Amino acid sequence: MFQEIIDAKKRLQGFAHQTPVLTSRSLNKMLGAEVFFKCENFQRIGAFKFRGAFNCISQLSETEQKRGVIAFSSGNHAQAVALVSKLLGIKATIIMPSNTPQVKLDATRGYGAEIVIYDIQSEDREIVTAKIQNKHGYTLIAPFNNKHVIAGQGTVAHEFLEKIPNLNTLLVPCGGGGLLAGSAVAAKGVNKNIRVIGIEPELADDAKQSFEAGKIVTIPVSNTIADGTRTTALGHMTFPLIQQYVDEICTTTEQAIIDAVKFFLLRMKIVVEPSGALGLAALLSKSVKAQGKVGVIISGGNIDPPVLKQILGE
Amino acid sequence: MFQEIIDAKKRLQGFAHQTPVLTSRSLNKMLGAEVFFKCENFQRIGAFKFRGAFNCISQLSETEQKRGVIAFSSGNHAQAVALVSKLLGIKATIIMPSNTPQVKLDATRGYGAEIVIYDIQSEDREIVTAKIQNKHGYTLIAPFNNKHVIAGQGTVAHEFLEKIPNLNTLLVPCGGGGLLAGSAVAAKGVNKNIRVIGIEPELADDAKQSFEAGKIVTIPVSNTIADGTRTTALGHMTFPLIQQYVDEICTTTEQAIIDAVKFFLLRMKIVVEPSGALGLAALLSKSVKAQGKVGVIISGGNIDPPVLKQILGE
Repeated sequence: MFQEIIDAKKRLQGFAHQTPVLTSRSLNKMLGAEVFFKCENFQRIGAFKFRGAFNCISQLSETEQKRGVIAFSSGNHAQAVALVSKLLGIKATIIMPSNTPQVKLDATRGYGAEIVIYDIQSEDREIVTAKIQNKHGYTLIAPFNNKHVIAGQGTVAHEFLEKIPNLNTLLVPCGGGGLLAGSAVAAKGVNKNIRVIGIEPELADDAKQSFEAGKIVTIPVSNTIADGTRTTALGHMTFPLIQQYVDEICTTTEQAIIDAVKFFLLRMKIVVEPSGALGLAALLSKSVKAQGKVGVIISGGNIDPPVLKQILGE
Repeated sequence: MFQEIIDAKKRLQGFAHQTPVLTSRSLNKMLGAEVFFKCENFQRIGAFKFRGAFNCISQLSETEQKRGVIAFSSGNHAQAVALVSKLLGIKATIIMPSNTPQVKLDATRGYGAEIVIYDIQSEDREIVTAKIQNKHGYTLIAPFNNKHVIAGQGTVAHEFLEKIPNLNTLLVPCGGGGLLAGSAVAAKGVNKNIRVIGIEPELADDAKQSFEAGKIVTIPVSNTIADGTRTTALGHMTFPLIQQYVDEICTTTEQAIIDAVKFFLLRMKIVVEPSGALGLAALLSKSVKAQGKVGVIISGGNIDPPVLKQILGE
């Protein structure tokens, strides 16, 4: 998988942004450590998902590309598949739930994708998707359980370590585990002594439970504010990589996530979505002790205005 | 003045941040031009004011430094004088109006400055300041009408042009004119063909009026959302420099400022205060036509949470 990350990096050149690494003097003083933030909120479509989608879709066969792709997502994966398809001249269909915020519908449609809305009360997403997929021969682009997607996400950590080579610890948010699995492989491949810690909300701790049980544990859909981590279980491809390359999985409270988003906004002047703020939340709330050089991956910055307002009000 | 900007740049080395320059593909496509943003919202204390304050206070005589400094401001200048004084081991007293938001009082006090609050209904700021100044022999650090402050602010444009040398136009927000005057001198000193345009809110257009009348025009205090530009008149030191080095002054509406702050937040994922968003506001509302390579100075990112919430609600 490490070699596939290197290959993905070449493939992404000229398409993905090399996102900046930011620091904060006051945070470092506050924590007594050196913290570096890899800012995927500045990635195209506002999140790391562009990398995996590009690495996956650009490797489809000509026939597959001609037929088109399909994905289900109400979030960053939808926009990633839509934009990548547009860049590569491929038809994209995105299945989105009926409660998707208008801004996300507009953004996805803005990239030229066809949107199919399903009723979350009466319809099953997988059945809706399979029906359309079979009818048109579209290739399904999975959000995390796909080796090309995982390799693409791994380029985040590889790029990060190229810029800041001597990190002691790397904190990575965890939803379905694509970013965490890819980043752990990349980080350990570059430096086997780096400590890789996955962070998830206390309210959606399926990865922690799975990690401890040694098998994939599925939990009910969580209503954590970190909407990017509401997946109910790791994938059968992400879980073994996480078992092998990740050192620990820690959780963080909703309040800590809110505090972290506010710190980014008001102190560091950057917009980070709640899922993207998990690493800082863990440091601020001391669920991970900051020591030495700590790398934190900010996964994205796509936050709905009402959620942002709610956070600012607390 | 150009040489003083070069000197200021050396003085600031290791103290001020070299702030990043950001771009947005979707904005460039939308405007049909190449727009570069110099991000002083990432400067220490969250605004360019750190530069002028440092360049000024660090040049005081030993005796003056021993006595201490005083400033009046409810905004970024207060925090700049407080932080610079702390870094240089100088006592700072800041005179702030009684309606200053708590966050700004806390931030200024957090840098170790002594705060004196005056009642805006019953007391005159200048009299309060003069009284304390005379009693203790403090040196007054003016927010813009001071050549060292102007030279310090000019380093923003100099640094910007070092990174993006071939800008056709430079847009600079204008309040008291320190940033605009310094940046215009720096820009024309580097490249006399660059077009320098000052931007102010329609509701606080004293600089435009002064520029057209050929003399300093004073207006009543404005309630524009761009609180950093509520100064009622240019200074006798900033005005002649603006007359000589600035090509044009344009205004922009309140709605355009709000739209620009929202674009920064939701599309570019950065927090910009309303005064800092004037350049983008002028471009988005077409009060300045975007052509070729356009440089835009973002002056700062210190926005009160209630104002941010208000903007997100519109």
